[in-house]
Amino acid sequence: MTATKIMLDEDELPRRWYNVMADLPAPPPPVLHPGTLEPVGPQDLAPLFPAALIEQEVTRERYVDIPDEVLEVYRLWRPSPLYRAHRLEKALGTPAKIFYKYEGVSPAGSHKPNTAVPQAYYNAAAGIRRLTTETGAGQWGTALAFAGAQFGLDVEIWQVRASYDQKPYRKMMIETFGGTIHPSPSDRTEAGRRVLAADPGSPGSLGIAISEAVEVAAGRADTNYALGSVLNHVLLHQTVIGEEALLQLAKAGVAPDLIVGCTGGGSNFAGLAFPFLREKLQGRMAPVIRAVEPAACPSLTKGVYAYDFGDTAGMTPLMKMHTLGHDFIPDPIHAGGLRYHGMAPLVSHVYELGLIEAVAKTQQECFEAGVRFARTEGIIPAPEPTHALAACVEEALRCKETGEPKVILTALCGHGHLDLPAYGRFLAGQMQDRELSAEAVAAATAALPRVPA
Amino acid sequence: MTATKIMLDEDELPRRWYNVMADLPAPPPPVLHPGTLEPVGPQDLAPLFPAALIEQEVTRERYVDIPDEVLEVYRLWRPSPLYRAHRLEKALGTPAKIFYKYEGVSPAGSHKPNTAVPQAYYNAAAGIRRLTTETGAGQWGTALAFAGAQFGLDVEIWQVRASYDQKPYRKMMIETFGGTIHPSPSDRTEAGRRVLAADPGSPGSLGIAISEAVEVAAGRADTNYALGSVLNHVLLHQTVIGEEALLQLAKAGVAPDLIVGCTGGGSNFAGLAFPFLREKLQGRMAPVIRAVEPAACPSLTKGVYAYDFGDTAGMTPLMKMHTLGHDFIPDPIHAGGLRYHGMAPLVSHVYELGLIEAVAKTQQECFEAGVRFARTEGIIPAPEPTHALAACVEEALRCKETGEPKVILTALCGHGHLDLPAYGRFLAGQMQDRELSAEAVAAATAALPRVPA
Repeated sequence: MTATKIMLDEDELPRRWYNVMADLPAPPPPVLHPGTLEPVGPQDLAPLFPAALIEQEVTRERYVDIPDEVLEVYRLWRPSPLYRAHRLEKALGTPAKIFYKYEGVSPAGSHKPNTAVPQAYYNAAAGIRRLTTETGAGQWGTALAFAGAQFGLDVEIWQVRASYDQKPYRKMMIETFGGTIHPSPSDRTEAGRRVLAADPGSPGSLGIAISEAVEVAAGRADTNYALGSVLNHVLLHQTVIGEEALLQLAKAGVAPDLIVGCTGGGSNFAGLAFPFLREKLQGRMAPVIRAVEPAACPSLTKGVYAYDFGDTAGMTPLMKMHTLGHDFIPDPIHAGGLRYHGMAPLVSHVYELGLIEAVAKTQQECFEAGVRFARTEGIIPAPEPTHALAACVEEALRCKETGEPKVILTALCGHGHLDLPAYGRFLAGQMQDRELSAEAVAAATAALPRVPA
Repeated sequence: MTATKIMLDEDELPRRWYNVMADLPAPPPPVLHPGTLEPVGPQDLAPLFPAALIEQEVTRERYVDIPDEVLEVYRLWRPSPLYRAHRLEKALGTPAKIFYKYEGVSPAGSHKPNTAVPQAYYNAAAGIRRLTTETGAGQWGTALAFAGAQFGLDVEIWQVRASYDQKPYRKMMIETFGGTIHPSPSDRTEAGRRVLAADPGSPGSLGIAISEAVEVAAGRADTNYALGSVLNHVLLHQTVIGEEALLQLAKAGVAPDLIVGCTGGGSNFAGLAFPFLREKLQGRMAPVIRAVEPAACPSLTKGVYAYDFGDTAGMTPLMKMHTLGHDFIPDPIHAGGLRYHGMAPLVSHVYELGLIEAVAKTQQECFEAGVRFARTEGIIPAPEPTHALAACVEEALRCKETGEPKVILTALCGHGHLDLPAYGRFLAGQMQDRELSAEAVAAATAALPRVPA
């Protein structure tokens, strides 16, 4: 019998991140300056990011070495375990073999520290003293607070006020790691004060929080900004997940037939999938790769592929991506990490190239899978990866009908300890859910920025 | 450099629990029937526990085989990692080598499933359909709910109402694992109704909750009761922790000079320490073994060694142990798992034999160590193990002065994700703390049960 946990030794920790751009049949469309509509250059990004990260954002090199200082922090939780879901398989009565790569063992409880740590490292190495960022549900803010503590950086976080008020445990966790957290809109920035003047009781939005964090970073020489998903260098850092999983499946003596990951901004999905996509593009394996998104925020399955802003306020460069429109406000579903109007440009590009597929799931189906998983495998998943688990369960039950012993690999990108109220509502039968209609998508994407073809 | 994590393969998982009674120079005093004051026999315990657990409670065999069905569930998180605290050592500037055995990787987030799983297994194997128990802070209830789900047992939990109201995340976690939870006092039992009749707003106590759980178990043939600490068989199951740690330190090529664990009922401490105590008694190593308890509930350092009840209501057999008196109500410190008036009889006995030592720590010092640990090692400890960490830090700083490169081993028995409000209060400077005075101890232990010598 395959072991329950397939572990790697610390000396098997990958020493390079993988850059999928090196292997794609066509390059992704350029990122554009919102004023000139010309491709952005390093000088446009320099006020916010250190040179090393700007270089990683555009490099076409296949591999980027992971600095020793980053590897040393990674060793606190990496290599992360790959589990064979024996008990879930048995409960489903499926011949499928289900493997899950578990990132909840990290200090923040999710995959986010995989990029927070190198981002903090490169900023500290460049002489930066402070990082600002926004956070919604709080996973990313927690990860950056932890990473800042490792490299002596102050970390200042603007959290969407609605989440700040509803999720006090995140604030406490961020402060325990030494971070500073403000509800957004705040009176600490022009952007925040402007919103508060118009609406003193504003619940905030990710777009406003980004504006506040960017404003502070742009205004101070010793301060930079950090982003937790969407950008190429973020996806690059997350590939350590897939590189480890490749080694672990080889140890288990199997190759995946299906790879499943949940997608919000896209970094968790890309982190697991891109190294396998390399193997697929280079002809060494042929897995189906499936992204799973919430039915209430279906950028890949229902959005348009167009140039759009990364933030609600329209301050960022224009990126070509699958989007529901930068001022789309998703329903308040419990998977806060998946409530993003767009999709990482690189994930959008490989989807357009036909290299991956996508499905959408309702919260009800996702939490059913989450509870089933908790009662068999003992881990309570964050709401985000329950989307991937729902797709795994669906495929495993299909295998039960056909008798196919498919090998399924999924990313369990975090635990749900700080998301238990969502489980409470599900168990009480109070889960609200709504598929986004075609009319709503059409309305939300009617006013995208005009960019000449 | 020693690795950060010293891991064991699944096939290195210990296959036997260790029974320290086999190696002690004198047997512990017998447990007495509260009515007859005669030693209790198996028949006295049969209404509450299955025969296999009663046998483990009294056996003098050195080892007890772990059933395959239990090993299979253990593999979801065991062997647990042993960490070398490189980053904490560096922050302290100490020549000491600090190792911590981390039990927070379990489904419940603590060491409790190590005994919940075998207790559920033996009960299911004996034809029992339902388990009842009490829980304070909720760690034990969570562990038993998870374990019940693995063996098809219904689990019904009475939680002290004050905790039930203050810690809603625990209830949600227990229900996610499929358990049923009631606030105690409840109207479901005679014992609960009696309390409610006298005081409809009663906040409850562990003693009342035990009475409710025992009443239900005693009254139904298909229902048994389960206890999460104190008893010999519970400590026995926890020795899997120390057995693994022995193998892991051997892999790291070191022997411990000091072993430190926090003590509430005593099961976490005994689980780590007893296998090392065997090595000490058999002359293979000579570590100092130190128990750490809260200054507000110091049963070992300030309590008396006497026969006392295990519960507040006086329903249990009489056990000879270090106690603050069975009706002692500890201050509402944050380490709920350490708020117990007594100490496991076996831990008390080895303390009387001079084989271990004990110290008490204030909450302030403990949370300082907890925050320092979180910011260096990335894990936010539960309030209970911050006691052990405070003692580790103290010893490591002593080593800094003397230059001794001592090897320190501690039990990090759980994470603090569901205890973040305690960190919030500490960081806000609102931590309340009080050392228990000698007068308070004298008053609390004035009316212990009279047992002829």
